[in-house]
Amino acid sequence: MAVVTEMFDKLLEEDTRFGDITSELTIPEELETEAKVMVKEECVVAGLAYLSKKIQKYGLRTEILKKDGEEVKKKEIVAKIKGNARKILLIERVFLNILGRLCGIATETRRIVSKVKKVNPEIRVAATRKTLLGHLDKVAVIIGGGDPHRWGLGDHVLLKDNHIALVGLEDAIERAKKASFVRKIEVEVKNAEEAIEAVRLDADVIMFDNFKPEEVRRAIALLKEKGLRDRVLLEASGGINEDNIEKYAKCGVDVISLGSLTHSAKSVDVSMKILLNMDRSAS
Amino acid sequence: MAVVTEMFDKLLEEDTRFGDITSELTIPEELETEAKVMVKEECVVAGLAYLSKKIQKYGLRTEILKKDGEEVKKKEIVAKIKGNARKILLIERVFLNILGRLCGIATETRRIVSKVKKVNPEIRVAATRKTLLGHLDKVAVIIGGGDPHRWGLGDHVLLKDNHIALVGLEDAIERAKKASFVRKIEVEVKNAEEAIEAVRLDADVIMFDNFKPEEVRRAIALLKEKGLRDRVLLEASGGINEDNIEKYAKCGVDVISLGSLTHSAKSVDVSMKILLNMDRSAS
Amino acid sequence: MAVVTEMFDKLLEEDTRFGDITSELTIPEELETEAKVMVKEECVVAGLAYLSKKIQKYGLRTEILKKDGEEVKKKEIVAKIKGNARKILLIERVFLNILGRLCGIATETRRIVSKVKKVNPEIRVAATRKTLLGHLDKVAVIIGGGDPHRWGLGDHVLLKDNHIALVGLEDAIERAKKASFVRKIEVEVKNAEEAIEAVRLDADVIMFDNFKPEEVRRAIALLKEKGLRDRVLLEASGGINEDNIEKYAKCGVDVISLGSLTHSAKSVDVSMKILLNMDRSAS
Amino acid sequence: MAVVTEMFDKLLEEDTRFGDITSELTIPEELETEAKVMVKEECVVAGLAYLSKKIQKYGLRTEILKKDGEEVKKKEIVAKIKGNARKILLIERVFLNILGRLCGIATETRRIVSKVKKVNPEIRVAATRKTLLGHLDKVAVIIGGGDPHRWGLGDHVLLKDNHIALVGLEDAIERAKKASFVRKIEVEVKNAEEAIEAVRLDADVIMFDNFKPEEVRRAIALLKEKGLRDRVLLEASGGINEDNIEKYAKCGVDVISLGSLTHSAKSVDVSMKILLNMDRSAS
Amino acid sequence: MAVVTEMFDKLLEEDTRFGDITSELTIPEELETEAKVMVKEECVVAGLAYLSKKIQKYGLRTEILKKDGEEVKKKEIVAKIKGNARKILLIERVFLNILGRLCGIATETRRIVSKVKKVNPEIRVAATRKTLLGHLDKVAVIIGGGDPHRWGLGDHVLLKDNHIALVGLEDAIERAKKASFVRKIEVEVKNAEEAIEAVRLDADVIMFDNFKPEEVRRAIALLKEKGLRDRVLLEASGGINEDNIEKYAKCGVDVISLGSLTHSAKSVDVSMKILLNMDRSAS
Amino acid sequence: MAVVTEMFDKLLEEDTRFGDITSELTIPEELETEAKVMVKEECVVAGLAYLSKKIQKYGLRTEILKKDGEEVKKKEIVAKIKGNARKILLIERVFLNILGRLCGIATETRRIVSKVKKVNPEIRVAATRKTLLGHLDKVAVIIGGGDPHRWGLGDHVLLKDNHIALVGLEDAIERAKKASFVRKIEVEVKNAEEAIEAVRLDADVIMFDNFKPEEVRRAIALLKEKGLRDRVLLEASGGINEDNIEKYAKCGVDVISLGSLTHSAKSVDVSMKILLNMDRSAS
Repeated sequence: MAVVTEMFDKLLEEDTRFGDITSELTIPEELETEAKVMVKEECVVAGLAYLSKKIQKYGLRTEILKKDGEEVKKKEIVAKIKGNARKILLIERVFLNILGRLCGIATETRRIVSKVKKVNPEIRVAATRKTLLGHLDKVAVIIGGGDPHRWGLGDHVLLKDNHIALVGLEDAIERAKKASFVRKIEVEVKNAEEAIEAVRLDADVIMFDNFKPEEVRRAIALLKEKGLRDRVLLEASGGINEDNIEKYAKCGVDVISLGSLTHSAKSVDVSMKILLNMDRSAS
Repeated sequence: MAVVTEMFDKLLEEDTRFGDITSELTIPEELETEAKVMVKEECVVAGLAYLSKKIQKYGLRTEILKKDGEEVKKKEIVAKIKGNARKILLIERVFLNILGRLCGIATETRRIVSKVKKVNPEIRVAATRKTLLGHLDKVAVIIGGGDPHRWGLGDHVLLKDNHIALVGLEDAIERAKKASFVRKIEVEVKNAEEAIEAVRLDADVIMFDNFKPEEVRRAIALLKEKGLRDRVLLEASGGINEDNIEKYAKCGVDVISLGSLTHSAKSVDVSMKILLNMDRSAS
Repeated sequence: MAVVTEMFDKLLEEDTRFGDITSELTIPEELETEAKVMVKEECVVAGLAYLSKKIQKYGLRTEILKKDGEEVKKKEIVAKIKGNARKILLIERVFLNILGRLCGIATETRRIVSKVKKVNPEIRVAATRKTLLGHLDKVAVIIGGGDPHRWGLGDHVLLKDNHIALVGLEDAIERAKKASFVRKIEVEVKNAEEAIEAVRLDADVIMFDNFKPEEVRRAIALLKEKGLRDRVLLEASGGINEDNIEKYAKCGVDVISLGSLTHSAKSVDVSMKILLNMDRSAS
Repeated sequence: MAVVTEMFDKLLEEDTRFGDITSELTIPEELETEAKVMVKEECVVAGLAYLSKKIQKYGLRTEILKKDGEEVKKKEIVAKIKGNARKILLIERVFLNILGRLCGIATETRRIVSKVKKVNPEIRVAATRKTLLGHLDKVAVIIGGGDPHRWGLGDHVLLKDNHIALVGLEDAIERAKKASFVRKIEVEVKNAEEAIEAVRLDADVIMFDNFKPEEVRRAIALLKEKGLRDRVLLEASGGINEDNIEKYAKCGVDVISLGSLTHSAKSVDVSMKILLNMDRSAS
Repeated sequence: MAVVTEMFDKLLEEDTRFGDITSELTIPEELETEAKVMVKEECVVAGLAYLSKKIQKYGLRTEILKKDGEEVKKKEIVAKIKGNARKILLIERVFLNILGRLCGIATETRRIVSKVKKVNPEIRVAATRKTLLGHLDKVAVIIGGGDPHRWGLGDHVLLKDNHIALVGLEDAIERAKKASFVRKIEVEVKNAEEAIEAVRLDADVIMFDNFKPEEVRRAIALLKEKGLRDRVLLEASGGINEDNIEKYAKCGVDVISLGSLTHSAKSVDVSMKILLNMDRSAS
Repeated sequence: MAVVTEMFDKLLEEDTRFGDITSELTIPEELETEAKVMVKEECVVAGLAYLSKKIQKYGLRTEILKKDGEEVKKKEIVAKIKGNARKILLIERVFLNILGRLCGIATETRRIVSKVKKVNPEIRVAATRKTLLGHLDKVAVIIGGGDPHRWGLGDHVLLKDNHIALVGLEDAIERAKKASFVRKIEVEVKNAEEAIEAVRLDADVIMFDNFKPEEVRRAIALLKEKGLRDRVLLEASGGINEDNIEKYAKCGVDVISLGSLTHSAKSVDVSMKILLNMDRSAS
């Protein structure tokens, strides 16, 4: 959650490279004001902690009215921003673009997680790396109640078909195990037999890739039969969507991962209303 | 189109900060291979020129089979990437995330533009700054046949309600005109009267903000009546969507802008298939 | 004016990469002091707003006595800087180098603008891209009362001989118009006939390149004759200097641009006097 | 001469942040061409080695016809640049701005050095830190035959009035000597007596600050009288210009330093002519 | 091993900020030569793969004669570097400083690992974060046959006394487990009882912190008694050195970690001999 | 001592790229606390001034109890750090790694310097460029009472065998002298004859490279004989260690340089103890 990412700075820099020529021409340089940030749709708030820190360096103070993770109604004010009027107008669009994206992902994640938990309260819903704003998207998944899965290519070992094809499953797992004792080893498998082999070779996590629910069920049954079920975490991935996710949730896996949490999340519509400081402008 | 943006580098850096521990353990370091980039849905291709340049510095060569802007069918191969296998796996996800996003925006833009052009071939469909990948999103809009509108806060003057409230319309336009002769001045207006005043004050573009189609029509009629129509470009913006856009297109405006081109575009599903170099691995 | 440029930081970094070995050996680390910034020649002040912001991050506070744009006499104090003595000595030279440059440009611009306005009060004097400190030079032109013209290659379309030779004038303008509705299109022309053609093709600005005053006059007469004069802005450029600028100003153009504003401006001699804090050093 | 400075990159980045919208619309993407770089005034060439390296990363090859330091006539071609036409147009202005500046400084330096050497062939003419392009300006001074003096605040000890006022001359020199044996210690003095004291305290260089020529002469006479002359280098600085420099040169100092070499140098007018590749454009 | 770190670039930049004034004055600019890299002590080679990549961008080609991980004798040539003589002299010192450091760590690691493996071939020797060159030091540990342990604070959960004191062991583990399924949870314990509790709460790794060998033995016996031994990895850490490490290795732990691998490793003495290109210099 | 280096930032960034996942899960976000920094061995403190500045930007305040350069006993508290508990844990390891390194170098330097000064109080002990943390290592040498020698390749001219072989000693010195009057010229010589020649050619410093003490003595005798001794500084370098350094100190050289000051210094063991804020955690 405290992931360091300069995505806000990068996007703001692109947007304001030549300043804000409109405001500079018309907004008094020292005008202090306040803006209200409003969501236009019911949603789960996400991103305010990150964004309030980012805009601090522009001298803007954020009063957070709804914390990341809270569910809010349409038209609720989620935060107030105080400070220099030109600065607020400067960061407005990038602030809203990121906030809308993160609320969208958190809301979608919360919705899917709730649906799944009704069927299986122990199950974990995870994201993939199909992101647009990099680590920020993962942060929103966490806020929505999901699991970020691996953050990048360097913090988790996930052996996929290509890797296995090249060195063979046994060799691949052995090399991975040998490389680090603080990493878990996950193996993507195509059928129950591969799953059994991987567990025997001491994989920590098995990913059933593009299995149908009944195939997952059969694979788990086999693992139990052989006394291997409790030695691993089991993850279903690939081809899972809102319609079939409950079926997967009932199959007995520990984790279900969906690219759609980040890939297909619709941005929430959010707006910022700047209050003109009448007293001051009147003077 | 040649906008310089390091978004690819930024996202890749986040993803691969610690390398790719899985591939490093299993893929031979010198293995050369080839990958095919396939779209899983019918779409307009966008982003390949940008991405092929970006991956060049990793020693990867891209053979572009479908140029940016071409319409392709489901399952078509749009590009081949040749080079070191580990490097291809390294850039795979970020490459696909950006490609999918840009194809999504270009496809949506093309669809909307086509729809509108049937009604009014002269009209221009423009994006807003409701972007996620900053300037890259604008590039996709251009590829799809849309107009990027202003790139950021520094390259176009757009006087909105806040600006006008503070210094008055006359003063605002005069200051903007005085500041630079190479910039156009755009004024967001709330009714026909404001539009007339703005044109008289020599604004270059009028944005009808949240006007209903019939209100747009009336405003244009009034401008014509006063002999002012030909001195400005007219843009409709706010509350425009796929359902009502044709009505706006018939009203006589020059430009229609929609946040949804970038805000709500769904990423296209794209994949990369790495071919294992059998000859070499066999040797 | 609020253009973001790190030129100060860049130059300071070059100058102080290994600290300031002289001051570190002799100036007490915690000594607080005050310095006076004095101009040694009559000039227009420019750069203090920018520089005072830049030195803030070194904990230095600037009391601005003469605002950017004010005209000051020889030996006037334009600002006081308060803070740590070593820090003031650290930034001294780069501060003065930039201040002297910007005052020089603003002064030269003011002088030329005044001269021209006497002849034609409506005319605009613009800079070119013949700069040394990039955007900072343009900021000084604005302070001096000039127009910055385009900031770089990406914010204005200026079709020159090479462009026209390659695709033809008609095609070039059409492509530019099509690319963006928020940009003006300027065309550099070599004779009156090209000017007429460009206006007919709907160019927004015509640049008479290396025209003699009488040629400009004739071209404008022709444009008026054809009823085209009011549809465009007219700019004279090339070969214009202090001696002949009044002749151009009387020709009826809207804008005169001169590389010399930035190219040949002489830096103003400015100095910084550090007051030793006697009370403290006495203790 | 091989100083690493990113000034070219920094200025180019400012200029081309959004690409070159004009060329992108009109110049064919793959067009290869050649450009000639011509000086419009007689001058000493400076900067071509630096600039040719800088533009290499844009795939541009420079054929240098006149080396840095050569004297060229008006209208001579000093270099040819080959490569992609859009790229050449992209770097053109920044290339010329830096080249013109550096040629201007080298030319001015060469002129002053020649003048001085006629009077005193052993004397050295040095620059100060009154620069605009930082280290690049110093590089041009070297090419012109001058001495760069210290590059920044960290590579040479120069004790000035403020330093001496605070800790006293004796203490200041002792501390400086103690700090490093690879640095020379220079002391700025206000009269002959201070000079004598500084040499006795083992300073390596004495700077006569704002001395009149006869004052310099007297000080040197005194130093000789006391047998101290040969232990130090003597530098005259402050208030020296083209008119009086010969008088200083005859006084017996080893070095004369002038801010005007960089502070007041006028940029040389240089241009780049792009050859349209007719064969190719004809096909 | 493919960790991206700019440490070489950073150190080289510090060293060569103003170029290499000695070589520039005396080495012909285009002189091509070859240098031999020799170790002056018996050691394990480490860092050549990294360094050869880094110097590529200076146009230098490295012929690696001894691969990372090979054991070499005193005075063996481990690599040859070919290219521009000035460039080789430019990178020489930083190249050697890093190479000496990495060889030192790899050699020390190999020595300790060999010693321990004689006693217990299954055991793993791990580093800590007591590094000087950051991730590069970890790379050398891997090359020497050790385990890098966690790379930083963000890729592994290690609950230490402070964390446990604040929220309690149970709560701490539960929160960590909930946060991510791809991370292992390690708990630092002070006695056998805490170890048992941590395993029962499903920790993945137990770190016996500052246990004496006999205390480790007793704790493992207790864990076995309760049937918990096989559910976790056991690590001994703190106060372990060359003299007592074999005792720990016999205790039955899976991992022993030592700060001394990186903290106290002595750099190997390495040198670079540049061959003067006689033929060329003769011409 | 005020050298600008981002080494701390660079190392911290590597360590905390993904935040500190352990603390974020267990340490309350707003918890304020205090930590004590303790040295576990007798040593000379070095690095606290640098580090306290670096951690300021994380909002951490350092109370320095023992200044850089003070000698402290085992278990002494050298500083207290106050601020946010998570922030303190975030910077802890990098802070300690750098502090331990710098204390180690300063302690070793102080020890060697003391030893040498007993034999020859005027002599100077200098470091080389065999560093690990770049300029920071040199800072520690200064704190320990040593001389930093040249900081990098760009701030001092040191002619070594390769340089001399290529252009000859006479030519090399002449070129160096001509290039700058603020630089000293040092020449590495292999025997007394070369030393005499170099002094006659006006070198400022002679480095006796790998001379035995008696060879140094003979060379100095020869220089005296020829009346050249007082015109130069004499430095012994190469093959000097703790055992033989006193012999060199008695030979009459001005400077002795040793790579071992930085190359072989052992890091001092330092620790940070975080005090849990009991009052607050109790509430």
